[in-house]
Amino acid sequence: MYEKRIERVLAAMKDAGLPQLLLSDHLAIYYLTGVDFDPFERFWALLLREDSKHILFSNKLFKVPPMPMEVVTLDDTDSMPDHVAPYLLDGALGVDKNLPARFLLPIVEGKGTVTAVLGSDCIDAVRAQKDEREKELMRRASVINDECIQKLAAFIHEGVTERDCYNYLDRLYASYGCEGNAFDHIISFGANAADPHHVPDDTVIQEGDCIVIDIGCKKDHYCSDMTRTFFWKRADPKHLEIYNIVRQANERAEAMVRAGVPFCEIDACAREYIASFGYGANFTHRLGHFIGMEDHEKGDVSSLNTDTVKADQIFSIEPGIYLPGEFGCRVEDLVIATDDGCENLNHVSKEPIILGI
Amino acid sequence: MYEKRIERVLAAMKDAGLPQLLLSDHLAIYYLTGVDFDPFERFWALLLREDSKHILFSNKLFKVPPMPMEVVTLDDTDSMPDHVAPYLLDGALGVDKNLPARFLLPIVEGKGTVTAVLGSDCIDAVRAQKDEREKELMRRASVINDECIQKLAAFIHEGVTERDCYNYLDRLYASYGCEGNAFDHIISFGANAADPHHVPDDTVIQEGDCIVIDIGCKKDHYCSDMTRTFFWKRADPKHLEIYNIVRQANERAEAMVRAGVPFCEIDACAREYIASFGYGANFTHRLGHFIGMEDHEKGDVSSLNTDTVKADQIFSIEPGIYLPGEFGCRVEDLVIATDDGCENLNHVSKEPIILGI
Repeated sequence: MYEKRIERVLAAMKDAGLPQLLLSDHLAIYYLTGVDFDPFERFWALLLREDSKHILFSNKLFKVPPMPMEVVTLDDTDSMPDHVAPYLLDGALGVDKNLPARFLLPIVEGKGTVTAVLGSDCIDAVRAQKDEREKELMRRASVINDECIQKLAAFIHEGVTERDCYNYLDRLYASYGCEGNAFDHIISFGANAADPHHVPDDTVIQEGDCIVIDIGCKKDHYCSDMTRTFFWKRADPKHLEIYNIVRQANERAEAMVRAGVPFCEIDACAREYIASFGYGANFTHRLGHFIGMEDHEKGDVSSLNTDTVKADQIFSIEPGIYLPGEFGCRVEDLVIATDDGCENLNHVSKEPIILGI
Repeated sequence: MYEKRIERVLAAMKDAGLPQLLLSDHLAIYYLTGVDFDPFERFWALLLREDSKHILFSNKLFKVPPMPMEVVTLDDTDSMPDHVAPYLLDGALGVDKNLPARFLLPIVEGKGTVTAVLGSDCIDAVRAQKDEREKELMRRASVINDECIQKLAAFIHEGVTERDCYNYLDRLYASYGCEGNAFDHIISFGANAADPHHVPDDTVIQEGDCIVIDIGCKKDHYCSDMTRTFFWKRADPKHLEIYNIVRQANERAEAMVRAGVPFCEIDACAREYIASFGYGANFTHRLGHFIGMEDHEKGDVSSLNTDTVKADQIFSIEPGIYLPGEFGCRVEDLVIATDDGCENLNHVSKEPIILGI
């Protein structure tokens, strides 16, 4: 599996004219080797070379299992650039977008015959198209999310606060063996929901409130991410109408997803539908983002992205309408694009649901 | 206050021969401006210039209050290097150690007349010497830590697990209004304590166990960090003896701290004392680390650091002895160095304490 992933990155490097690529992002290294840990300030990097003489740079303090590539182990008194230089080929050196200056500058200085260029796309584009193993892990994380949002809906009761829900969900994810949250849960009651990134607080639920629940877990390294909007005890007719607009926007956009369609057209589909009801200015964010081991990965569903969908890419479709001081609503699923459509990873009903009755 | 901090950084830049310094570390920017948020993948940077025409690079999505410097606001469709280039002076451009390649490479490419060099020391050395406001915040975070470790000691009971203690402490810190932990709590019973970085698990406390508690909160941006080792119901005489060696090593090292003393000599003091009892090989880490807004800041108390102590630097003194498979013990305080000694930020007794009797 790892060999196949590395082959895909090497092919992307060839297309980009890069003889070598230095990766320091620990998730990229995990993706290509199966070994993961947070190196904190220490140097932990994978050098992929066109001649397949790849090198993993490690530290004595890291417990690295036997690897199918040469491992160069430094200790804290070693000069990093002196240990890296002998393995670098002359010419362009692709580096990942997050390589920090404390590594980049000494490496370039230590080997005058290389020129650093941004090479992240070679790994990001490969990571964006999930393989079978990854799709399975993404499905599992979303099955947990489907179950947890329904348990959370059942937990909501008279007097409950947003923070109570937040804490309940933390325990729920832990009981499913999750590593943690994919991102900070957003749980917003009533007018709080008008801020798409509201942080849960001590607000107590009130009759007539909308309840925006935007949550995701991390399970076996992969993320889920879903939003549903419920109502408490009753729903204002205007709010229900907006709910149905958002739901339709979500479903229409999802129906457009298939390989070959430009992302900006999917965004436009949802955006124009919402605008046709006069709420264009109230849909204040992009329609979706790529996701995998990170909640937000390279790539999005926005007016700026003229790329076309590729099969096996996984991203969110999450339109919303926000009325400052009053109300907010968002409906979000994750989808896996296929050649002729998409697989929806979330199976929780989008019918308008009024809780507490 | 911010003006004074910027003046100190400008003086350090002058000493280092840097006409300009580009900082992207959000804590460094907070330190110099009082404005903090996590920009995620967006460009958020402060350019300090020798002519004091400083520039803050921001994004339309960030809510920045009025600033005492020019603010250049980009949106997501703008070319970052094109907006930065006009403000760069020719010559050396100091950058902080964490500036990611996705910013560094385009900036250097966009302005051919600058040469990027690592300039972190100019800000790190200033941040290492805390001003009055920072010392006060560090004291307050440590007062909370002093109270919490005593509450945690009182909480420990028959049948308790390391994880129970971990969760209890989370709630305790929250009740003090802390933003969170300064680092992942280490709470280790018995043989688990032989790993200095043991992760709390379902181990149940047993009679005769040592209890290593290494904890810290983050309060108003500043960190605390303290370790105490207790015993449960009884203490093996050998373990008590080791405890007293570690305690003595801690106290002897603290007694050496004052401006002008080389850090490596403080480390050697504790290390040689421990070695004189035959446990040299069982003290497996450096004696201490700098601390402030981050739990580990630039600078440490180790055999490699030949720098001398400066007044107002804050760091930990944390010797330990670890017997694999059997036992571990560590005693840690934070100290503020002064011209003639140090102020200890922790006031929890270091007498050997046997809990549960």
